[in-house]
Amino acid sequence: MEYVMELDQLSKSYGRKKVVDGFSLKMEKGHVYGLIGPNGAGKTTVMKMMAGLTGADSGKIRFFGSENLDKMRDRVSFIIEEPYMDLSMTARQNMEYIRRLRGIPDQGRIDELLAFVGLENTGKKIAGQFSLGMRQRLGLAMSMLPGPEIMVLDEPINGLDPEGIIDIRNMLMELVRTRKVTILISSHILKELSELCTDYAIIREGKLVEELSHEELLQKTHTRLALQTDDVTRTATVIEEKLNIHDYKITHDNEIMIYERLDELKKISKTVTDQGLIITRFNLEGESLEEYYIGKVGEKS
Amino acid sequence: MEYVMELDQLSKSYGRKKVVDGFSLKMEKGHVYGLIGPNGAGKTTVMKMMAGLTGADSGKIRFFGSENLDKMRDRVSFIIEEPYMDLSMTARQNMEYIRRLRGIPDQGRIDELLAFVGLENTGKKIAGQFSLGMRQRLGLAMSMLPGPEIMVLDEPINGLDPEGIIDIRNMLMELVRTRKVTILISSHILKELSELCTDYAIIREGKLVEELSHEELLQKTHTRLALQTDDVTRTATVIEEKLNIHDYKITHDNEIMIYERLDELKKISKTVTDQGLIITRFNLEGESLEEYYIGKVGEKS
Repeated sequence: MEYVMELDQLSKSYGRKKVVDGFSLKMEKGHVYGLIGPNGAGKTTVMKMMAGLTGADSGKIRFFGSENLDKMRDRVSFIIEEPYMDLSMTARQNMEYIRRLRGIPDQGRIDELLAFVGLENTGKKIAGQFSLGMRQRLGLAMSMLPGPEIMVLDEPINGLDPEGIIDIRNMLMELVRTRKVTILISSHILKELSELCTDYAIIREGKLVEELSHEELLQKTHTRLALQTDDVTRTATVIEEKLNIHDYKITHDNEIMIYERLDELKKISKTVTDQGLIITRFNLEGESLEEYYIGKVGEKS
Repeated sequence: MEYVMELDQLSKSYGRKKVVDGFSLKMEKGHVYGLIGPNGAGKTTVMKMMAGLTGADSGKIRFFGSENLDKMRDRVSFIIEEPYMDLSMTARQNMEYIRRLRGIPDQGRIDELLAFVGLENTGKKIAGQFSLGMRQRLGLAMSMLPGPEIMVLDEPINGLDPEGIIDIRNMLMELVRTRKVTILISSHILKELSELCTDYAIIREGKLVEELSHEELLQKTHTRLALQTDDVTRTATVIEEKLNIHDYKITHDNEIMIYERLDELKKISKTVTDQGLIITRFNLEGESLEEYYIGKVGEKS
């Protein structure tokens, strides 16, 4: 397996407090990794070490298999805490600045990216007059200008309004789909991450608690079958007597929630309809990323 | 119908800009209203007028049927922008301050509320040393101390970590369930609101665009039937030939999404199983609050 990013036993203390403690994570091309954990778990510190904004006490970081980070960081973009920009300049001037700084030839790309993030009509308005959402969009456009292969994004939807959240999500999904960009993203909005991520890394007290793919999450959390028919009482009798299912409950909506034999969906379905019952709902469903996460990290109160 | 809160044709301009423009909303006891809209739509201004933090240019506000707001506001609590507290005092001292100010006798209630929000063990730590999440929790405890019948909350989960989000949600749900508190809440996280709210008010450019209940949302957005069987090709033939359904598509997961005849679920189900097909998924599903909202407010880019 080839990894585009590798974090190997990273550790970092501030004073006597160990904020990152032997954190390791390997990331594959085109995957979107959600870094999740409570406040103070070390998420931002991990990202700052990757960006070279703070040094690691020990451990290794590799991009594209190389430890020569100064060279490799050209292929990686970072938005950590506030996106960096000159607030006295317009969107286009900020983009132009980055273009010259990084020696990027094609000027048409600035128009393309400003349109991509919906800032093509901001004209002479300076970034200092932008809303938080507009600054997040500009930050994203600026970070995309060098055509990064990896993006590291710390809470990129923080403070955005509903349209902003949807736009950023769609932009990131398009980058992954069309350009196979690899993304490491942190957010406290787990419902949002679960729409975007292919993988999750749960961090607590500076340590990796668990790494799992979205498919593994779905498998681990597919925990019940919701079954609704035209006759709930008779259905309960059928699943007990014909299928010997006893781990179920009936909800106040007259749905039957079945918690066992979930690998025999066809048998359950066929047995119910063979008895002349009409299925009006038959859906395997489970806990969310949020419920899974709380189970792993533990509820505070 | 008796309403605990009524906003009647509220308007407010700052300079020449009309930020709230004839906004009306009536709220019933025990309901949770989500106030949603883009940045700058007027959400916070509406809440500030309700709290008496800014005056309305025109229009009326009634709590419990009365326009005597100074008297009625004792029964309402507000958290708008940052929760108000003394940062040099501990959690308990802040609570004690409110207790004396409002002349609340029972001191046991402070312990109870601090435990409810998970701040019972913060001891001598002052609020200035609290995380944003802890301050949000303390703000909530302080606002609950007088036993309000209405709570007006502006972005209460902003900046919280996943546990904080879950805790606040659970606390609010418990208040509604056990004490029939009425809540008006704004948030940009529509997925969060859709777990909490009984009703939604969509605001844009200071105007009410739409008011609808959670049930109405579900009805309006129940737009397709996801059908999976042991034989997708034969199922497609059956629904075309036996049911005359043509508005459907087959997904890459080999699910059939049906967009018509959704009031005839039993007939669809029975016809499919009568042909010997085994249903492995049968689920009416639809767009989310987010998709509905974007359809109403319009996508920017």
